[in-house]
Amino acid sequence: MPSSQVVEVRGKQFMVDCGEGTQLQLRRSRINFNKIQAVFISHIHGDHCLGLIGMISTFGLQGRKSPLHVYAPAALGPMLHAQIELFCPHLCYEVTFHEIDTEQVAVIYEDRSLQVSTIPLEHRLPTCGFLFREKPTLPHIRRDMIDYLEIPTWQINNIKNGAGWTTAEGKTYSHEELTTPADAPRQYAYCSDTRYIPTLHQLLEGVDLLYHESTYCNDNLQLAETYYHSTAAQAAMVASDAHVGKLLLGHYSSRYLDETAFLNEAREIFPESYLANENMGYGV
Amino acid sequence: MPSSQVVEVRGKQFMVDCGEGTQLQLRRSRINFNKIQAVFISHIHGDHCLGLIGMISTFGLQGRKSPLHVYAPAALGPMLHAQIELFCPHLCYEVTFHEIDTEQVAVIYEDRSLQVSTIPLEHRLPTCGFLFREKPTLPHIRRDMIDYLEIPTWQINNIKNGAGWTTAEGKTYSHEELTTPADAPRQYAYCSDTRYIPTLHQLLEGVDLLYHESTYCNDNLQLAETYYHSTAAQAAMVASDAHVGKLLLGHYSSRYLDETAFLNEAREIFPESYLANENMGYGV
Repeated sequence: MPSSQVVEVRGKQFMVDCGEGTQLQLRRSRINFNKIQAVFISHIHGDHCLGLIGMISTFGLQGRKSPLHVYAPAALGPMLHAQIELFCPHLCYEVTFHEIDTEQVAVIYEDRSLQVSTIPLEHRLPTCGFLFREKPTLPHIRRDMIDYLEIPTWQINNIKNGAGWTTAEGKTYSHEELTTPADAPRQYAYCSDTRYIPTLHQLLEGVDLLYHESTYCNDNLQLAETYYHSTAAQAAMVASDAHVGKLLLGHYSSRYLDETAFLNEAREIFPESYLANENMGYGV
Repeated sequence: MPSSQVVEVRGKQFMVDCGEGTQLQLRRSRINFNKIQAVFISHIHGDHCLGLIGMISTFGLQGRKSPLHVYAPAALGPMLHAQIELFCPHLCYEVTFHEIDTEQVAVIYEDRSLQVSTIPLEHRLPTCGFLFREKPTLPHIRRDMIDYLEIPTWQINNIKNGAGWTTAEGKTYSHEELTTPADAPRQYAYCSDTRYIPTLHQLLEGVDLLYHESTYCNDNLQLAETYYHSTAAQAAMVASDAHVGKLLLGHYSSRYLDETAFLNEAREIFPESYLANENMGYGV
């Protein structure tokens, strides 16, 4: 089954991997195509990137104007360029290719709400995962205090950013009295495809949600080692060692007819394990 | 909706066009991948050929041994070669590319049961359809006569090929008395994408089944002309002028929510019109 995920952070959408058929699934999911700003490709295997050119082409047919950024291992660059030239010669928006080094931990994308960095993985060819780290948000305004003290609207941003407020009578309210703490910044890590890396958890400490491939169950540990994939138990060990909030399993081999085997195996080690599935949404 | 069809003739399978997601549909349809001997690509628009590299890659993962022949306009050759090099560097079977001239009527494939030739079409870039012509089969043996006359098995092929039979008593039975006529050879024509060509029917005279694109209904005749597509009525006119057995409509624009409009429009002109749809099989 080809892989693709859409990560939404504060109204912006990012795609991770783009296997064949991604645009068809997108259409079913009613995700707004134009919100997707960037695509991150973990490695150049067909099931993780063959849908890219079709999606780019369809974005064009839909009249997209905003640029699309593609982050991927270097070898995909010339191919993407040649595909656009042949299949979308009159593309009406810009596709910018960003080469990533899969062997380094590096920040490859940053905006005011988010930072994305690479997670080196070990597969049969250069591969990395991606760590999405939301930036801290401002604290919440206590609407009841604002109303009670009749604080003017233009003052609210100052208060969110740390200011207090002094009333006409000279009484001062501290920033803390006028706000409740900000939501904790969220973190999501995508790790696919990879063999089990015993030290991987060091890069994933405390993330809220970890997607880790589990192509096999432990009954096929040998296959996992041969093909540089992981078992559900191995994914769960990473999750447990990294003290993540939740583990999402995926990338199941088609030799398993029933995916509950993955779930059971993982939950023995890490109870907060869940199965990723087609068109599933997951909130953190 | 991406296009792809599988044409089966006497146990051999041929694919016509291969839009994105074709391999996923194939898997659902339970068609035996390995039986597909050749793929014919009508033109290099994404919705007709972007699924090719994924299917080739998956055939490889399944251990295919028999060669796959790809017939397509010239520009696809170097791209296919580059894609195989990048996405399937260790492909375990041969993919042979055959350049076709979309402007000529020419036989591009032939084996002992089938001939495939090009049908020049008019789209926004070089495009042709494909005419599948089954070769004549031998007449059927009359099993009742064989049994009654106790004709030995080794004689049957001779009789199929025209011989008669003389009994031990010297009575002679003619070939015609021992057989019933062969089935009429079947013909299938695939015409997509194309604008309406008033002379097209000359190449399609009497085919059993014609697939002709109908991207629009006549309410969007102007769009059809602008984008070099056809309406359902135009497809039906071709079918009617060519005296085909049945017309199969397809390649509907997504602006139509209900496809019965296509069917009604076509049937007013050519009653034996039908709607092609996802995963539909059609026997001739």
